[in-house]
Amino acid sequence: MKLQFAMDTLKTESALELADKAAPYVDILELGTPLVKSEGLSVITAVKAAHPDKTVFADLKTMDAGELEADIAFAAGADLVTVLGAAGDSTIAGAVAAAHKHGKGVVVDLIGVSDKAERARQAVALGAVFVEMHAGLDEQAEDGYSLDTLLTAGAASGVPFSVAGGVGPDSVEAVQQAGAQVAVAGSAIYSAPDVAAAAATIRANIH
Amino acid sequence: MKLQFAMDTLKTESALELADKAAPYVDILELGTPLVKSEGLSVITAVKAAHPDKTVFADLKTMDAGELEADIAFAAGADLVTVLGAAGDSTIAGAVAAAHKHGKGVVVDLIGVSDKAERARQAVALGAVFVEMHAGLDEQAEDGYSLDTLLTAGAASGVPFSVAGGVGPDSVEAVQQAGAQVAVAGSAIYSAPDVAAAAATIRANIH
Repeated sequence: MKLQFAMDTLKTESALELADKAAPYVDILELGTPLVKSEGLSVITAVKAAHPDKTVFADLKTMDAGELEADIAFAAGADLVTVLGAAGDSTIAGAVAAAHKHGKGVVVDLIGVSDKAERARQAVALGAVFVEMHAGLDEQAEDGYSLDTLLTAGAASGVPFSVAGGVGPDSVEAVQQAGAQVAVAGSAIYSAPDVAAAAATIRANIH
Repeated sequence: MKLQFAMDTLKTESALELADKAAPYVDILELGTPLVKSEGLSVITAVKAAHPDKTVFADLKTMDAGELEADIAFAAGADLVTVLGAAGDSTIAGAVAAAHKHGKGVVVDLIGVSDKAERARQAVALGAVFVEMHAGLDEQAEDGYSLDTLLTAGAASGVPFSVAGGVGPDSVEAVQQAGAQVAVAGSAIYSAPDVAAAAATIRANIH
């Protein structure tokens, strides 16, 4: 299982600092949606230039203009981009067309989708390389939130999936046991007093 | 009824040129989602500085981190931001909280939502100033697309709404007759050989 670090920050400089610290322990560097909206495509180019050996994941959360948004992000240096599962099939297909053109990949983010397992299968049929079983920051802050529903949906989907929704050192083993290809950790790394140590601990808990 | 110009371009310079030409004829200048992702928040600041008398609409299409994304866009100069109707209620409520802090507004974009009239009422109950009855560029390119379903949903919603989905000089009167507060025109203006003339024609068809 790969480890993806979701860098939910707002400045390119901060993203580069976080990436430098965590890079030895993670496979995928994710630029969060607010970061892309804050800094524009230039943050993708900057992170890829600093870490050409890492997979750079631009969390575009595209809802429309799938081919256009994916195309400009791939051209800027992204290896993977997200399209929302809530988007129409033609938006996902458009982003996949751009991915094929660039030799890169589309991940479908299932945040906000009620039947995640069913939409996951549709997304992969449309050409997504994997889907993200994802509960957003707002959903994680709601009463009664649990990572378990994401793990259950992933296991039930029968397609390659990642899990994002508050994954940390204590939960990463459960993510792996559920069969995920990628565990996404954000706050557990970037909010830690020692970013490198936090990333290393999560990495050590993947077997 | 107000006229909103959706500037679906990718560069700040191009947006400023379009805004300069259309400004005499439109009320609201919209920065499209790909433009914000391409250029970052600086495009919002640039357009607001050039047109302080216009309402600047940042089409963030926020799906998560509602308060954060709205807050940074308002701080950059946006008067209105969008949150997706497909987002959770807490994401809409978070963006509304940021709007209240800044004395600005949230628009809920109903792209991809199946029951638009029902979600429209929920969005306004959560504090949206109006909703956008919206078919995206990808949906407009699909066979059988018609603006009529948006007009019907808007009229049925009973709450303030805009209409976006290929509105042009021939359809703007139908949008007004359906009771919309705002008509959103994009390609009909920015793809026209004479941007100012195209905006003027649509404006002239609003009575």
